[in-house]
Amino acid sequence: MRDVAIAGAGMTRFAKYPDRGLKELSREAVTAALDAAGMDKRDLEVAIVGNAAAGLTTGQECIRAQVVLREMGIDRIPMVNAENACASSSTAFQLAWLYVASGVYDVALALGVEKMYTADKSRALAAFSAGVDVEQLRGIMEQLKPPSEQAAGAESGAGKSRSLFMDIYAAGARAHMAKYGTTKEHYARIAAKNHNNGSLNPHAQYRERYTTEEILASPLVAEPLTRLMCAPIGDGAAAAVLVSAEKAAKYTTRPVWVRASALVSGSDDRAHEGGITTRAARRAFEMAGLGINDVDVMEVHDASAPAELTIYEELGLCGEGEGGRLVDEGATELGGRIPVNTSGGLLAKGHPVGATGVAQLYEIWLQLRGEAGERQVPGARVGLTENGGGMVRGEAAATTVHILTT
Amino acid sequence: MRDVAIAGAGMTRFAKYPDRGLKELSREAVTAALDAAGMDKRDLEVAIVGNAAAGLTTGQECIRAQVVLREMGIDRIPMVNAENACASSSTAFQLAWLYVASGVYDVALALGVEKMYTADKSRALAAFSAGVDVEQLRGIMEQLKPPSEQAAGAESGAGKSRSLFMDIYAAGARAHMAKYGTTKEHYARIAAKNHNNGSLNPHAQYRERYTTEEILASPLVAEPLTRLMCAPIGDGAAAAVLVSAEKAAKYTTRPVWVRASALVSGSDDRAHEGGITTRAARRAFEMAGLGINDVDVMEVHDASAPAELTIYEELGLCGEGEGGRLVDEGATELGGRIPVNTSGGLLAKGHPVGATGVAQLYEIWLQLRGEAGERQVPGARVGLTENGGGMVRGEAAATTVHILTT
Repeated sequence: MRDVAIAGAGMTRFAKYPDRGLKELSREAVTAALDAAGMDKRDLEVAIVGNAAAGLTTGQECIRAQVVLREMGIDRIPMVNAENACASSSTAFQLAWLYVASGVYDVALALGVEKMYTADKSRALAAFSAGVDVEQLRGIMEQLKPPSEQAAGAESGAGKSRSLFMDIYAAGARAHMAKYGTTKEHYARIAAKNHNNGSLNPHAQYRERYTTEEILASPLVAEPLTRLMCAPIGDGAAAAVLVSAEKAAKYTTRPVWVRASALVSGSDDRAHEGGITTRAARRAFEMAGLGINDVDVMEVHDASAPAELTIYEELGLCGEGEGGRLVDEGATELGGRIPVNTSGGLLAKGHPVGATGVAQLYEIWLQLRGEAGERQVPGARVGLTENGGGMVRGEAAATTVHILTT
Repeated sequence: MRDVAIAGAGMTRFAKYPDRGLKELSREAVTAALDAAGMDKRDLEVAIVGNAAAGLTTGQECIRAQVVLREMGIDRIPMVNAENACASSSTAFQLAWLYVASGVYDVALALGVEKMYTADKSRALAAFSAGVDVEQLRGIMEQLKPPSEQAAGAESGAGKSRSLFMDIYAAGARAHMAKYGTTKEHYARIAAKNHNNGSLNPHAQYRERYTTEEILASPLVAEPLTRLMCAPIGDGAAAAVLVSAEKAAKYTTRPVWVRASALVSGSDDRAHEGGITTRAARRAFEMAGLGINDVDVMEVHDASAPAELTIYEELGLCGEGEGGRLVDEGATELGGRIPVNTSGGLLAKGHPVGATGVAQLYEIWLQLRGEAGERQVPGARVGLTENGGGMVRGEAAATTVHILTT
């Protein structure tokens, strides 16, 4: 296996774009990535495109890569369309890494692109529901009903006015609170941190700052989640160009190296093996020959604030049940011991699902090059991304962990 | 790069299965592949699943691999969902090969699975339409209108009672006939050959034999295509287990080696570089260090009979415009110089689109092991598969060529 570097990366601002489609968003992100590497599009040898929802939101299935790239004059080369729900484009990134690390190609494009926003919000929500086993959808929704809705005998709101996944996160948060004494304030503080970080990121969908009080006072989505603790619906694209070590010098004087690329799926054996995030991280740290204490900055899958807290524990930033304490210490804030989601995370930067994985890698690429502006982590040399997607039997269907270094 | 072998392969019979879903079809194919290799499912280290239409026919998007495999107790391992329209599962096969050839994993599963048949035929036809740029769908359909429909001033039937792709194939056939004197009888003879081959294949959807006269007399789909010259709608699954050379002996005494795996997409520069099939084949032959004359048996993408004739020319079995002559010679029939589509091809074996790529590889695997029964090509040592998918700007969006040897 050969060493692989990110020679360039780019992204659109994440936002609701009523008038911009997959092609235009892709063009902006790919052009930015190529420009960052000083690379001509004809240098690309293979392209992998991650997208999760276009089939349901735009009707485009099957050949999204070819449709969006040919529009900008990229053709001829091998193209693969990769899906793993919210982890679609980090999966695409792994495949791009694999094509280069294996020696099959020297220059690979990984693109994540998504159109979630449509005038008909139900189509975006349906796209989330397609990230679980659709044959079990009704049963899953029933199980997740918050106590308030059970008490009222109301029909479950899951998948109706909110994403099914917010019900999943809310149920997990309630369990964590009951078991470990974690509080709503802990979740609000994580959300406040990420909104603060997002205010420093020109690519973020939401750039307002909020106090923990304002976060707690925002409309309830599903107990204990308030709206500002949940990732918004939006559109966007992110791209990265990966090159072999021998080609890296041609394109950049500041390569960012891909030291580990781990992808795993959920398991029924989690009591024995640990949860999916723990297993993905274990594999990534083994590949990189590094440990959690070596990491200077990380982007994780905070589709909701409680998810971020759980990921702290699963990655080993703290022990099981100690996520709340880590929040109390401010360890993951800018200036803290290990800043998490400096981009604003999914909560503030936004979560156009198929674009999220590569957008996380874009942020770490910026950080390791020292180009993250007001949100720069000084001297960052090792970065990590964690991206989860879908759900089968109560655990993520796919989780990736990537480790990048200067 | 390491040598990679197919240790086992299996498939369901292709058919219309009103009562069988993705999970059950997958289980049958994967179990057959594992059994052929004497392999426990816990030996699998990575799985790539190709599927094109489940989003539109069943509502399952995003995580089809995890949904179908976890149902049969396969979890924990990395899973990737790969799409390239009708070339989805040969793309999955390339990724499986890549994971093993690169040394990342030793044992990989490639699965293709499809549910095309639904009570509402329009949903299956919509799935085909999603294999083009959906924003250009109306224009494409208008261009393809056969002369008879133009003359009548009728609304185009494309995408209504037949697959859009049959209009594409019909237009290509009319052009070939006008330019080279190819006849409807040539196409009928190809269809008769494939239906004859299918009659010898227990996994084929259609097992009836037809004379060229019967083929010509079957209902007209779009001039010059009759129904028996077109692949049917159906369901099915096909699976292959790929292993590294060092693990091959553990699982099989008769490995079939993957000598080349080529994937390319369409290009606007085809006058200069040749068409997509030619380019894919060129790359595959270079990888394998072999030429077209070394090939003993091949499976190609005969979604329609005219497509097969054109592929003869693109692969170099004959010169441009000489496909009709090759048919006259019977060169591609069983017993001919180079038998093509011994399985019955897409025309008779069937074409559950996401399953087709691996099903082609299954047939070559059988042939190279000498296990193809009544349709065995004696002494076959080198086999080739060609699988095309989707369309952008008048050329396939993705085409794969694989070369296997004993």
